[in-house]
Amino acid sequence: MRDLVEFGMGRTARRTYELEDVSIVPSRRTRSSKNVSTAWQIDAYRFDSPILNHPTDALGSPEAAIEMGKLGALGVINGEGLWARHENVEDKIGELVDIATNDPDPSSAVRHLQKLHAAPINPDLLAKAVRQVRDAGVTTAVRVSPQHAPELTPGIIAAGAELLVVHGTIISAEHVVLVDRGDEELVAEPLNLKTFISDLDIPVIAGGVHDHRTALHLMRTGAAGVIVGYGSAEGATTTGEVLGIGVPMATAIADAAAARRDYLDESGGRYVHVIADGDIHASGDLAKAIACGADAAVLGTALAASASAPGRGWYWPSAAAHPEMPRGALLQVAEEADRVALDVILNGPSDDPDGLLNMVGGLRRSMAKAGYSDLKEFQKVGLSIRA
Amino acid sequence: MRDLVEFGMGRTARRTYELEDVSIVPSRRTRSSKNVSTAWQIDAYRFDSPILNHPTDALGSPEAAIEMGKLGALGVINGEGLWARHENVEDKIGELVDIATNDPDPSSAVRHLQKLHAAPINPDLLAKAVRQVRDAGVTTAVRVSPQHAPELTPGIIAAGAELLVVHGTIISAEHVVLVDRGDEELVAEPLNLKTFISDLDIPVIAGGVHDHRTALHLMRTGAAGVIVGYGSAEGATTTGEVLGIGVPMATAIADAAAARRDYLDESGGRYVHVIADGDIHASGDLAKAIACGADAAVLGTALAASASAPGRGWYWPSAAAHPEMPRGALLQVAEEADRVALDVILNGPSDDPDGLLNMVGGLRRSMAKAGYSDLKEFQKVGLSIRA
Amino acid sequence: MRDLVEFGMGRTARRTYELEDVSIVPSRRTRSSKNVSTAWQIDAYRFDSPILNHPTDALGSPEAAIEMGKLGALGVINGEGLWARHENVEDKIGELVDIATNDPDPSSAVRHLQKLHAAPINPDLLAKAVRQVRDAGVTTAVRVSPQHAPELTPGIIAAGAELLVVHGTIISAEHVVLVDRGDEELVAEPLNLKTFISDLDIPVIAGGVHDHRTALHLMRTGAAGVIVGYGSAEGATTTGEVLGIGVPMATAIADAAAARRDYLDESGGRYVHVIADGDIHASGDLAKAIACGADAAVLGTALAASASAPGRGWYWPSAAAHPEMPRGALLQVAEEADRVALDVILNGPSDDPDGLLNMVGGLRRSMAKAGYSDLKEFQKVGLSIRA
Amino acid sequence: MRDLVEFGMGRTARRTYELEDVSIVPSRRTRSSKNVSTAWQIDAYRFDSPILNHPTDALGSPEAAIEMGKLGALGVINGEGLWARHENVEDKIGELVDIATNDPDPSSAVRHLQKLHAAPINPDLLAKAVRQVRDAGVTTAVRVSPQHAPELTPGIIAAGAELLVVHGTIISAEHVVLVDRGDEELVAEPLNLKTFISDLDIPVIAGGVHDHRTALHLMRTGAAGVIVGYGSAEGATTTGEVLGIGVPMATAIADAAAARRDYLDESGGRYVHVIADGDIHASGDLAKAIACGADAAVLGTALAASASAPGRGWYWPSAAAHPEMPRGALLQVAEEADRVALDVILNGPSDDPDGLLNMVGGLRRSMAKAGYSDLKEFQKVGLSIRA
Repeated sequence: MRDLVEFGMGRTARRTYELEDVSIVPSRRTRSSKNVSTAWQIDAYRFDSPILNHPTDALGSPEAAIEMGKLGALGVINGEGLWARHENVEDKIGELVDIATNDPDPSSAVRHLQKLHAAPINPDLLAKAVRQVRDAGVTTAVRVSPQHAPELTPGIIAAGAELLVVHGTIISAEHVVLVDRGDEELVAEPLNLKTFISDLDIPVIAGGVHDHRTALHLMRTGAAGVIVGYGSAEGATTTGEVLGIGVPMATAIADAAAARRDYLDESGGRYVHVIADGDIHASGDLAKAIACGADAAVLGTALAASASAPGRGWYWPSAAAHPEMPRGALLQVAEEADRVALDVILNGPSDDPDGLLNMVGGLRRSMAKAGYSDLKEFQKVGLSIRA
Repeated sequence: MRDLVEFGMGRTARRTYELEDVSIVPSRRTRSSKNVSTAWQIDAYRFDSPILNHPTDALGSPEAAIEMGKLGALGVINGEGLWARHENVEDKIGELVDIATNDPDPSSAVRHLQKLHAAPINPDLLAKAVRQVRDAGVTTAVRVSPQHAPELTPGIIAAGAELLVVHGTIISAEHVVLVDRGDEELVAEPLNLKTFISDLDIPVIAGGVHDHRTALHLMRTGAAGVIVGYGSAEGATTTGEVLGIGVPMATAIADAAAARRDYLDESGGRYVHVIADGDIHASGDLAKAIACGADAAVLGTALAASASAPGRGWYWPSAAAHPEMPRGALLQVAEEADRVALDVILNGPSDDPDGLLNMVGGLRRSMAKAGYSDLKEFQKVGLSIRA
Repeated sequence: MRDLVEFGMGRTARRTYELEDVSIVPSRRTRSSKNVSTAWQIDAYRFDSPILNHPTDALGSPEAAIEMGKLGALGVINGEGLWARHENVEDKIGELVDIATNDPDPSSAVRHLQKLHAAPINPDLLAKAVRQVRDAGVTTAVRVSPQHAPELTPGIIAAGAELLVVHGTIISAEHVVLVDRGDEELVAEPLNLKTFISDLDIPVIAGGVHDHRTALHLMRTGAAGVIVGYGSAEGATTTGEVLGIGVPMATAIADAAAARRDYLDESGGRYVHVIADGDIHASGDLAKAIACGADAAVLGTALAASASAPGRGWYWPSAAAHPEMPRGALLQVAEEADRVALDVILNGPSDDPDGLLNMVGGLRRSMAKAGYSDLKEFQKVGLSIRA
Repeated sequence: MRDLVEFGMGRTARRTYELEDVSIVPSRRTRSSKNVSTAWQIDAYRFDSPILNHPTDALGSPEAAIEMGKLGALGVINGEGLWARHENVEDKIGELVDIATNDPDPSSAVRHLQKLHAAPINPDLLAKAVRQVRDAGVTTAVRVSPQHAPELTPGIIAAGAELLVVHGTIISAEHVVLVDRGDEELVAEPLNLKTFISDLDIPVIAGGVHDHRTALHLMRTGAAGVIVGYGSAEGATTTGEVLGIGVPMATAIADAAAARRDYLDESGGRYVHVIADGDIHASGDLAKAIACGADAAVLGTALAASASAPGRGWYWPSAAAHPEMPRGALLQVAEEADRVALDVILNGPSDDPDGLLNMVGGLRRSMAKAGYSDLKEFQKVGLSIRA
């Protein structure tokens, strides 16, 4: 742990950095972007693009997850979201978007979201959603919170899930007391993530973590991937305002990548994937996240502008639905009529000057201009920090 | 005193940090927020929440102080404010708020505030206000300025005050010449704070201080608590613009906490509480203030949005009333109709995405996610600084 | 010269600081502001307040200079400004202000200013303006540019000037080739400032300088005071945009104060005053300038809001009139009807929350709260730098 | 490579600086701006001003290039731009500007630009444009992309080009695989820049490079000049957003100047010119670029405000036309009616307070005030960095 600042007498803090603080510096022979691979593989599952969606109802309908999969990315549905609680989710989101559109007070939409999440989880609805994705033939990934994982996982696997995402806004692993899945209160009984994972037949991605130690602990539980970050998105997530907790992503990704190296050594060769979740909005952010050490990245706002996203141009994190302490709001990222095909957001071609379309193409060109041909190598590209 | 910068030849300054520069970094096992205590005790008085109100008339009516007490916090009334000068304070504040609402020139409201404060202090009115709080059965705290403390304190205690807050925007203690209570000129005769406190039967909280040395000096006077900061609130206080004086709160709190440790040692075990007063607007700020070393915190703008705050949605520091050199202005923090119950501001539940409601719940969850179960432990949580 | 940054390979720059980067930190016994002196003396001339006006036509009419003097400050008239070129200056400024008010393109007012300055200097008009100030019984100070100093000074002294201000936006002294008085082209013949000053019977203030070496050189010419800075005022001066030249004032003042100490030693006791000119808008800035090491300060925008300032609420630096390369624009600092008495700007009382009124009172209170009783001592007050 | 930051565990980045971070510090005897030379010579070609235009169609019509040459600067036409693809370019740009003016969605203009660039290059049109410049008697410079250089260069030279600019947004040289000319896909066959240059009879300027190593490699290919930067212009270029690639210009220029020194030594005296291309909008930026080590500078937005620029007050980089991954947008820098003569932009006189007119005069005055008489010396001027 380096670069400590003594900000007051006898009290130190570590200096940390955001993705926006770093830039990629090309300094090698360039190459054609056609000779670059952006492929990513976790366990037995291979993807053309190292991209997942944030497990929020704004993105994770079964239909949207299927489209993600068909386009080479990994769609994740939220096992505790609206599709697990309501029959007619489209109408519910319609009500929500109407409120967000017409009521300037952000609390009104939050209140409605809280109300929608107050309905209980219906295992049949959840299983139906999972089956729908599996039946479409794409890799089927479902997110559960740590506290509901034991109760929900059997049904989810039975319905066809191939990857389980155990995900809270902040997670710990040691003797795992798992705290908060972002939209409900906690259960009293702690989850032992290590036992839980070893008893499962499918690989688990767990997170989010914010530091090297917790990342290493989660790797030791047997997780195939660790999510770093809490999905920070300016204007949508408010973890800093509400909790005073922050996770500058450039530092957090590099720390988790260091944990990956440490665990690779201590485990005699097990490679746990680092998946960055936060502050990745444009293709340049995606390139920086990989460059800082991530194997793959979670997109939120970027995908919310797609025509197939259930949020109709609005984005919100699932923590916005917490019944007592919401940590997010609804953010409009596109007018409903201006939304574009998910394929264009992921694979282009782009006519957008700001890197919001053709995210994978932007990553590919960044790699090519910096002279790298695959993601793993690109994690070593030179970086600069704006002083 | 560390991290000195030679900003010009032969002239140095210390590098200092604001609360907004620091973030809390969870790096331990998490725990349930239900197992977290936010209780705070000073002298014989115990509170569920480590929260006081800034002693401004915008917050400190007897009724509002009573409600603070009933909700587990500490209400402080201003012994030299409008309740000590006028019979019909509600009307006076009505006039003030009308001017602030209708006249875009901030000087107009300041002028009216100066006029309202030009009325003399009426000891009977003051005693009546104190008695009203005491009779309600909550801990009764009254603020006096250093220069009026000798003359006003006997009557205040006789009326039932249990805690005395000796408070100027900047205070010193050594051979104590006390300068400025923020709304009036000084008295010629200095106050010896040490003698003054030792002659009293009730505990004293004194401040505000800005640095380690003055904090230590005030601790040596026998104070039970020391306030650090001057209540900085962007848009309301203007001490920096008017005096060039600044007190970055993260550094100032940590320095005062160091003084607390030093004094604990030199006194053979007397623990003087450090109370942070400045830049604490949302629950995340409150968590950071404790994390930097504070035992409790003073809220200003956050409480001004409550339905029971006398300022009708407006906030101002008492220094805005200074007759010659005002150092603050009126700031609207809520439309009158949009104000919420104080209970919701303190204890939730929240539907606000920005951490302005359920302040104590936000603190509690921050502690739980970082793995701490009481305030004293939480002062050691890991922190990062945005570079 | 310390704190060098190697910003590129083999190329270094010094890290420098603005007044807004520093804050005053009270850490001593406080004192009453009534026991504080803000008096300043240069040569035989004593002033209640350490304040001069920037020598621009926006501030320096004979009438305004007289009022400055009567209120305890030093008024400076511009010996090469409009009063030296036109009979009916009030009308000319009226035209200028009309254009600035009605034409949103800032170039229109600059063009008119260039035209007004194209008229030749009339020695009789200049002498009349100087006499008017002298006849009023206040200290009479006149600014000339380096290149016109030899030709204009005899007449100025004959008309009664007591202090000569030799002033260009940037000045050097060694074998003095003097460059630019901000509104006209250069003369071929260089001025030897040392010979020039030694031949005069009245004291000279010279500047502006930006660094330690030039400050020291000017002190060696025999100047009684050295101006540091070029009158930087955001929205009015544009030296950075036009020339790429910058002078962070906190660093520049401290460097000039170091030159003062060095020269005091090498001269065996001659004290040359350091006068800060730039970024001083509110009373807090004034306090910081003294705290960084200045003996006195030049005000620009702050004085332009006075009812007696000839600019009718508008401010501009004289460099805005340069015929080929203007380095400034007209900035409105007050509506004509909202202007206040100069006395209130300097000495209060204030009803302005932002430190724009009672500038001297703000300085006095800052000194008192920090525990200092005169300006010379206050140059040692503790400072912090926001990281 | 110095000033490394360990931003995460085991991962470092270099701290870098923008032109806006640095300021010129005058600290020598000043001199008259009349005694200052801004002349620049590359190979046999001498220019009064060290200025080129960015090779975008927004600036580089044959007529505009001729005017640049007649005014002492170097005009560059884009050998792969609209003049090489269409007969009636003025009409095409008219359509483009109409869309940009009337459609607030920046993608609409980008789409039209993509469409205009989809037309094939017509060698006859290109030759005609080159001949037009050559016939006017000014130095004739043409830009080609690395991948089209072999096929287009013979015709360009036959038509009279005297300087060839081989230019991609990012270029490498070692075994040169050249990637991207900003508006089209790549060719499979790499260009060996060294062989290519040695076979030519005219000098080559190549770029853009971002770091010391690539600059040195390009110098070794035999280039007469190396362009550093990618023409960054806030609001117009979006390389950072799209690719995550950044090149802080103060650092990049100094690094390239270090490469120039290194190559001068290793080559036994060959001086390769460093030409800065990015973030140079006002005369102060131009002065800073030279001060950081550049021999000459590329202007973009500054020239787009001229009456003769084909963009009618709009600026865009050629990378905005890329068919799949545009990295720029159209930016209006002047209303069509407010455009000024190119002569005034370059040589004044100015009535603009912000350094947008009389760019060369601003450079000249900056040099004079800092005491330097030619560009080469001025590369050593003192610099400060705002902390």
